Amino acid sequence: MTTRLDKFNEMCSIRSFYFPSAEIYSNSFAGFFEYGPTGNLIRTNIINFWRNELVRKNNFQEISGSIILPKEVFVSSGHLGNFDDPIATCEKCKLPFKLDKVISSVTGKETPENLTESDYQKILDEQKITCPSCKGKLGNITRFNLMAYINVGVQSGNLGYLRGESCQSIFLDFLRIYKTGRQTLPIVISQQGKVYRNEISPRNGLLRCREFEQLESEMFFDSEKMDITPISLDAVSDYKIKFNLVKDNLEKDYTIKEISEQKITVGNLITYNLYIMQKFLEDIGFKHENIRFREVPENDRAFYSKQTFDCEIKSEKEWVELFCVNYRTNHDLEGHSKGSKKDLTIVEDGKRILPHVLEFSSIGLDRLFYLLLENNFEVKEINGEDRNILHLKPKISPYFVAILPLMKKDGLSEKAKEIYDSLKNQNKQYFAFYDEAGSIGKRYARLDEIGCNYCVTIDHQTLDDNTVTLRDRDSLEQKRINLNEIFEVLDNLYFEKKSFNNV
Amino acid sequence: MTTRLDKFNEMCSIRSFYFPSAEIYSNSFAGFFEYGPTGNLIRTNIINFWRNELVRKNNFQEISGSIILPKEVFVSSGHLGNFDDPIATCEKCKLPFKLDKVISSVTGKETPENLTESDYQKILDEQKITCPSCKGKLGNITRFNLMAYINVGVQSGNLGYLRGESCQSIFLDFLRIYKTGRQTLPIVISQQGKVYRNEISPRNGLLRCREFEQLESEMFFDSEKMDITPISLDAVSDYKIKFNLVKDNLEKDYTIKEISEQKITVGNLITYNLYIMQKFLEDIGFKHENIRFREVPENDRAFYSKQTFDCEIKSEKEWVELFCVNYRTNHDLEGHSKGSKKDLTIVEDGKRILPHVLEFSSIGLDRLFYLLLENNFEVKEINGEDRNILHLKPKISPYFVAILPLMKKDGLSEKAKEIYDSLKNQNKQYFAFYDEAGSIGKRYARLDEIGCNYCVTIDHQTLDDNTVTLRDRDSLEQKRINLNEIFEVLDNLYFEKKSFNNV
Repeated sequence: MTTRLDKFNEMCSIRSFYFPSAEIYSNSFAGFFEYGPTGNLIRTNIINFWRNELVRKNNFQEISGSIILPKEVFVSSGHLGNFDDPIATCEKCKLPFKLDKVISSVTGKETPENLTESDYQKILDEQKITCPSCKGKLGNITRFNLMAYINVGVQSGNLGYLRGESCQSIFLDFLRIYKTGRQTLPIVISQQGKVYRNEISPRNGLLRCREFEQLESEMFFDSEKMDITPISLDAVSDYKIKFNLVKDNLEKDYTIKEISEQKITVGNLITYNLYIMQKFLEDIGFKHENIRFREVPENDRAFYSKQTFDCEIKSEKEWVELFCVNYRTNHDLEGHSKGSKKDLTIVEDGKRILPHVLEFSSIGLDRLFYLLLENNFEVKEINGEDRNILHLKPKISPYFVAILPLMKKDGLSEKAKEIYDSLKNQNKQYFAFYDEAGSIGKRYARLDEIGCNYCVTIDHQTLDDNTVTLRDRDSLEQKRINLNEIFEVLDNLYFEKKSFNNV
Repeated sequence: MTTRLDKFNEMCSIRSFYFPSAEIYSNSFAGFFEYGPTGNLIRTNIINFWRNELVRKNNFQEISGSIILPKEVFVSSGHLGNFDDPIATCEKCKLPFKLDKVISSVTGKETPENLTESDYQKILDEQKITCPSCKGKLGNITRFNLMAYINVGVQSGNLGYLRGESCQSIFLDFLRIYKTGRQTLPIVISQQGKVYRNEISPRNGLLRCREFEQLESEMFFDSEKMDITPISLDAVSDYKIKFNLVKDNLEKDYTIKEISEQKITVGNLITYNLYIMQKFLEDIGFKHENIRFREVPENDRAFYSKQTFDCEIKSEKEWVELFCVNYRTNHDLEGHSKGSKKDLTIVEDGKRILPHVLEFSSIGLDRLFYLLLENNFEVKEINGEDRNILHLKPKISPYFVAILPLMKKDGLSEKAKEIYDSLKNQNKQYFAFYDEAGSIGKRYARLDEIGCNYCVTIDHQTLDDNTVTLRDRDSLEQKRINLNEIFEVLDNLYFEKKSFNNV
């Protein structure tokens, strides 16, 4: 039987939303993907939504830094010491395997992090775990660093590492940005850009890539003012956030007020962080019930972290981590201060401070893309036929509106092109798509599948009474609208000031 | 004496428009840069302008591909054979040098490309050229490949190269995009993304980086239809393009009509390309006299190229190459077809075609950023004082408008914040900046320097008669505008429907 997920993956491939890089070469690498034109329109809209609705509306500052940084940076950050995976190699077929994956696929449980090599050997022996590929003996347990590097320039020994997270530039540039910015703490610095993880055997499509993109934000604050938030939390005290806390391992909503009363977070800035991020996720198109913040137990946290929440999104198969909210203390600035021998402290209110860092969110853009589409993909039976519908919001869908003549002849194409050109010349924030080829039903179906919100159809009646039909992707309903009003109606729908029922 | 260029570079540094990556580490690499918040607002606006005005208005299709691609891709493309620089190493101090730079700094002329190693040795001997650093003997002449690579995954031998140009993904993905797109030739595929060149000793700031970004477009067409253009060139026959042609080496304007009559290009598609790109450059903010297309002589062209123009921008110091328009024939698709053993031909009108490629433009984003700012930076004497003004267009400047209370007290701050919030809630395409700290003169000066187009100032008269002053960055003039009209006035200025003189 073809499941909803099969249909979704098939659609992504047929429409070239994304596909493997260098796929025409037989030895292309796993874990590298490209976005085709329609997928890239959505990807670009997601980035713009992040930039406009999260970064700019909340007065975050955005920078753009280098992907390749000197080795010393990652020595200080700890990536060269810790950013690795346990692997074992099959003594028979010589293939390498990621140990935690091999073990958990046998035990059915998540393998604890931070085990020693002899711990892993013990588990392999006790559970009689062999090579997943040829059943050979697994041996040579070691840790494989996920950081890739190049030699910069002609002279050897100048190692430049491809960043595994986009946050290090933010830490390195903090002091300069702080001084240039004329703002006081707390400040948030954001960045969008590519990162690399030399994964051992990436599968799972966009959910685990070797090359991927992050949408990152890091907050710098005075640890003595951790309860003073940029906006008043009282004004949103009834807002609900879903948690999965260590204390009860239950999925449960808490209001902002309850979070504060029950001291669920170690400070109001974290509550503010969770509020802003959950609102962002709901605004971009995830349902409340599909978002949760899972508290990470102490033994799974980095040693410097005082509190960590994984933000997880429910996909058809499982809860998937989208980003992490992590109170990193002053670990990062301290590390770079020591490594660079530069004083990174600042003075505020006469007090010298090495700011603490709250990892506000480091969203995997490719995961966000995948999960948002998967969450909003529906297979709907219409007249005995399965139809694909992608329910993306106006600011995310590849095209907000399509202008379609019912048929090419009788002057309908000319009239439709006139409307299309007029729309193009109005400096709208949304895009229109023009299509006149094929039956109107097939055109509707194709547009529903890629997520186009509305169709404006020009028919013979248009020539008589200056009305067009406006068709809603979600309800499949149609209304006749006077052409004089159509742009205002579209504006109201785009900015979600009105729903289709009320136009 | 402090020159305009000194002032410009000083401003970029003080305002953190861009700065060296990992600058807090003493051994950071040359050729890597970061954009600070204000610089990044401009950088993002340039990318959006490219996407909206060039790519989307002309119906190009945009993809987003991987930076790292398998070795085989660059064997087929020829990059691993040819993408290299001649170098020599000093026998005394052991430093490596780029030979063409060393030679041309002595001869004062451009060193010809494609010389053999013995040609270079001959020049060194004849001109008695020694190490620029220690005057030692230069030797060990060899070619250094600019492509950097990593080992992908655990097993050795899986080399992934960091692309040196963003075009290869476009060639690799062409057939899939063509099939998905339901369009016929000619089609243009675009891409924005980072590329790497392991330069030997990059200097010259943003003009020569090891890590930089490209805004790329490649046109695929039927070589038998090279004179059929997507838009009619007759409609723009008087439009002037400045050339520097091989035949006379003179800088001279030619109309589109003259280009066609005198057969300056080898086909109308190239003329269309030059027209679209020059219009883009003028629209984004370069003066006509600072743009030229330099025809590249046959012996400096790649062997497969039938015609090449370097688009150059005049900077204070010299003409700088911004991108290249290159008729690449079917070299790229043929190479990848052979290398991948996949048939990349298509069928149109019953004819089987391996499309030809016109490199429409591969703009270096960082060069575009630098040249656009440098070209539009003015040092103006006002009341005996030197003032910096950055004359960026509304869609490029970091902030289009600033909302400023004359002073904090007397309710002026409250009124100004009200206007600022109202503007924020109107879903405008432009950004506003709010600032109430310091004297109004200093605030104006700071905003002029970073390129903010207009200032709206709220003073005591505002509370009386509901008018504000609107101040123009370019003329420094002010007008009183009624608050009821201010947003409409700003809209007209943003979309350049009216000039400041006419509002």
